[in-house]
Amino acid sequence: MKIATVQNNPVFGEKSSNITDLLKMMDSVKAELYILPEMSYSGYQVVSKEEAVKLADRVDSDNIMRFAEWSKSRDSAVILGFPEAAEDGKIYNSSIFITPEGERHVYRKSHLFYKEKLYYAPGNTGFFVNEWRGVKIGQAICFDWYFSESFRTLALLGADLIAHCTNIVMPYFQRAAFARAIENRVYIATSNRIGTESRESESFTYTGESVIVDPLGNYLVDAPSDKTGVFAAEIDTNLSRNKKLNDFNDVIADRREIFYKKQSF
Amino acid sequence: MKIATVQNNPVFGEKSSNITDLLKMMDSVKAELYILPEMSYSGYQVVSKEEAVKLADRVDSDNIMRFAEWSKSRDSAVILGFPEAAEDGKIYNSSIFITPEGERHVYRKSHLFYKEKLYYAPGNTGFFVNEWRGVKIGQAICFDWYFSESFRTLALLGADLIAHCTNIVMPYFQRAAFARAIENRVYIATSNRIGTESRESESFTYTGESVIVDPLGNYLVDAPSDKTGVFAAEIDTNLSRNKKLNDFNDVIADRREIFYKKQSF
Repeated sequence: MKIATVQNNPVFGEKSSNITDLLKMMDSVKAELYILPEMSYSGYQVVSKEEAVKLADRVDSDNIMRFAEWSKSRDSAVILGFPEAAEDGKIYNSSIFITPEGERHVYRKSHLFYKEKLYYAPGNTGFFVNEWRGVKIGQAICFDWYFSESFRTLALLGADLIAHCTNIVMPYFQRAAFARAIENRVYIATSNRIGTESRESESFTYTGESVIVDPLGNYLVDAPSDKTGVFAAEIDTNLSRNKKLNDFNDVIADRREIFYKKQSF
Repeated sequence: MKIATVQNNPVFGEKSSNITDLLKMMDSVKAELYILPEMSYSGYQVVSKEEAVKLADRVDSDNIMRFAEWSKSRDSAVILGFPEAAEDGKIYNSSIFITPEGERHVYRKSHLFYKEKLYYAPGNTGFFVNEWRGVKIGQAICFDWYFSESFRTLALLGADLIAHCTNIVMPYFQRAAFARAIENRVYIATSNRIGTESRESESFTYTGESVIVDPLGNYLVDAPSDKTGVFAAEIDTNLSRNKKLNDFNDVIADRREIFYKKQSF
């Protein structure tokens, strides 16, 4: 399957034109699955709960339906991050996996970063995997990566590919992605944004460098830090389903769960 | 506390002279805690179960007592890997933490690598942490690192420092150590050997590059791949006990264990 990371630079709050820009970018490179950043069309840096409420969309909103229609017309799937106005009245930092067949799978970020804790509800979906056209795809959002248990859980659920929507501001992930890939023998596609958002007294610079890493730790895509674009690579489930390091070791079967401690403090 | 990784090149089976060489190296650089490689004085590549039995030592053997006496005389602790002849009649790939006060803590490798599965019993101690002179020290052996749960467990038990005795032949760890350190905010001291062992039809080349990585991912020590030596660094428990990434995030407290799946296949 040919997958693509989409690296953009949205204008805060300009949802409609940001979506137009994203769809135009996506039309420039043909792929079967497109992975977009966290808060891909809304911008990231809300400064109040009220603003998060105002920015958020329902899963069947016109904004989301533009992606669904595009997906159907291009026969390609899309996974994108967005601020979700949920049926339970809460606002989540979510990603939605939209297929041309009309499926929509919503993942809500488990590990909220920094002031997201003030503005969004902690995700309540947990991690899950969906199979689409022969590839088992797990969803994760940005800071989830920091906790090895997140990608491990997706690997244990059988993920071939982790679709990782991000707005990265810390300097760690792109380097650590190597470990996350080899320890689980999965593909990781991380779509990050670029640019700087300054709102009130705080300014965030997003690091770009979207990556696609294969199960052996090879960086198939390593995008620039300062340019938007669509960066594609082929993935092969034969590689992600082979968990054997050698004739004696398997990175999943060799786990000794009896010795893995739960939180103790 | 000043700790040191000891990188050697033992001659297979020449236990007594290998110990002499190790103690001589350790006398060349003063530290409070010395961490030696896996199978530090025995050599690694046994080719039969009988040979493993023959090579193995009891925890109160003359060979181990040489380290205990050295520890006492120098007022320094030592953590070293060795093939252990246990009271249960089994042979383990173990590490022993020897203090000048006379403590001896034995850890038995949880995740056996490659043909170790033919020659050694899987470790039955699990992971644990001991406090010595104000530093909480966990033990791990080589391939344990590959499973993120190993170092995570030690971090959850409160480890400041993971004493990691290795005979590394794969090209992954030294690069992945960065992720293991930052995800847990712990010090990692990895003592690896150098050189090549060829026994029967198989040959292993050990990669050296012993490292000491701090909780922020800085490599305090990054030893050469082809030279023996003792490489020391200062560690500071204020750094390993600060798990806060920022005012809102803590790499341990933010875990959402409810979503971390256990093995499902």
